[in-house]
Amino acid sequence: MRIGWIGTGVMGASMCGHILAKGFPVTLHSRTRAKTEPLVARGARWADSPGAVADASDVVFTMLGFPAEVRSVYLGDGLGGGGIATAARAGQILVDMSTSEPALAQAIAEAASTRGAFAVDAPVSGGDIGAREARLSIMIGGDEATVLALEPLWSAMGKTFVRQGGPGAGQHTKMVNQILIATGMIGVCEALLYGHAAGLDAERVLQSVASGAAGSWSLSNYGPRILAGNFEPGFFVEHFIKDMSIALDEARRLGLSLPGLALAQQLYQSVRALGYGRKGTHALQLALAAMSGVDWQKRA
Amino acid sequence: MRIGWIGTGVMGASMCGHILAKGFPVTLHSRTRAKTEPLVARGARWADSPGAVADASDVVFTMLGFPAEVRSVYLGDGLGGGGIATAARAGQILVDMSTSEPALAQAIAEAASTRGAFAVDAPVSGGDIGAREARLSIMIGGDEATVLALEPLWSAMGKTFVRQGGPGAGQHTKMVNQILIATGMIGVCEALLYGHAAGLDAERVLQSVASGAAGSWSLSNYGPRILAGNFEPGFFVEHFIKDMSIALDEARRLGLSLPGLALAQQLYQSVRALGYGRKGTHALQLALAAMSGVDWQKRA
Repeated sequence: MRIGWIGTGVMGASMCGHILAKGFPVTLHSRTRAKTEPLVARGARWADSPGAVADASDVVFTMLGFPAEVRSVYLGDGLGGGGIATAARAGQILVDMSTSEPALAQAIAEAASTRGAFAVDAPVSGGDIGAREARLSIMIGGDEATVLALEPLWSAMGKTFVRQGGPGAGQHTKMVNQILIATGMIGVCEALLYGHAAGLDAERVLQSVASGAAGSWSLSNYGPRILAGNFEPGFFVEHFIKDMSIALDEARRLGLSLPGLALAQQLYQSVRALGYGRKGTHALQLALAAMSGVDWQKRA
Repeated sequence: MRIGWIGTGVMGASMCGHILAKGFPVTLHSRTRAKTEPLVARGARWADSPGAVADASDVVFTMLGFPAEVRSVYLGDGLGGGGIATAARAGQILVDMSTSEPALAQAIAEAASTRGAFAVDAPVSGGDIGAREARLSIMIGGDEATVLALEPLWSAMGKTFVRQGGPGAGQHTKMVNQILIATGMIGVCEALLYGHAAGLDAERVLQSVASGAAGSWSLSNYGPRILAGNFEPGFFVEHFIKDMSIALDEARRLGLSLPGLALAQQLYQSVRALGYGRKGTHALQLALAAMSGVDWQKRA
């Protein structure tokens, strides 16, 4: 099985590396060629365009930043320039692992289907560490037999991989994941801000609350970093805003009112407005503290 | 050490029972005498008033519903009728395990102090099951030596017990706990609502999201009950609204803006307005679904 890989950012480079390590032949392309060099040094072959990757591959993976890039790579530029879905070969499999729009995933699957090809949406959670350690959770939407055939590749990159349904179901599941994280993070940051203002010892508070009904992955993993004033990503605020915007667009399309998610998205707009777009998602603490006149990094 | 116990509701009865089981002599009182009968059958002695309990005890515990009751029992009726703090004996220890106002806990400690007595605030988390299984997390504010002297009693009722600081620190820590739960529950309910509207299989979605960065105690424990349409308490909506109101009052006093907590409190007002005040906190799902025109209990 000849593998193609498009997009070798922080996540993509690790994920592609795991596939190389399993011995699959890999052809790759990325916007920034320098980022592919470590993978080329390990045996991957460079190609000059997404189309050239697809020409050389039976299964093409993409790991891109924003839905606009996904649309362009898969469906072309709208001016007649082809995309890898619109130009797919019969039997070819295209897997988008970016977090993107469910409706776009469905449109890509339809475009692939008219060529006799298969498109699968497979966004992930677990962040850069999960990618590096091959411990991602992969949320998969697509044709059942196709998803099954890719099992050696899912298991190369992830610890949990679940087919959630047809095209778009992977993206929808990722939205569920992001809604949970977004609103939960508000609770973590407000609780730590309250504890600080009330004069509590935060480490001792975590002893009381982290392992009970108030406990969460976010509290256990981001709580200590927030208290230490370490806001390095992790996961970029600006990517998280993209995800929440997709979720809110979908919610509107589905006729849903999600006030918690809407609040989270607005608060994260503030995080970006304050200059923390390239910090980690837990930088919400800085914006929430600023709203109350607290300089979190200079607190006593 | 002669123990007094005031308030034998669902939580209080279990907690008092553990103290009896350790062999301490217990004198008790509760608004509804019938609720004390199982404890009396196990050897506890009934007293006709909170004051009569205090007269017969070295250490008095209270487990009451609302701050108004706490104020009345500890500080009297404001019309000259005495409270157990204002009438305390030198060396006596008074422990309020209700979730109540931090400022009230401080006022009670001051009143006790003028009598040479000690007041401790020690609210708990872990719910009815935690109380029954002696697995509560007890968040303690009060004089250090006093808190230490009560160790055999904390360990009879709880698994985790941490002194968080002086008077009021236990209540403040409980507020941190409730802020986490309140905002986290919005995320759980909105995520499940989105998943439903998007046509996903909720059990499979939980496989993908519950053990990763989106995971929380609330999701793992309430998610399945919400999906099964089981909204029995657990923890009453109306008590939770009380806790959030205390937290918001304190936040205002501390000069904090906590928009997530404020939203949660308003959404829970809706839960109560829809008639679910005596359901469990996860009944937030019913109100959020109703806001989007979804009858959660009749969904396909």
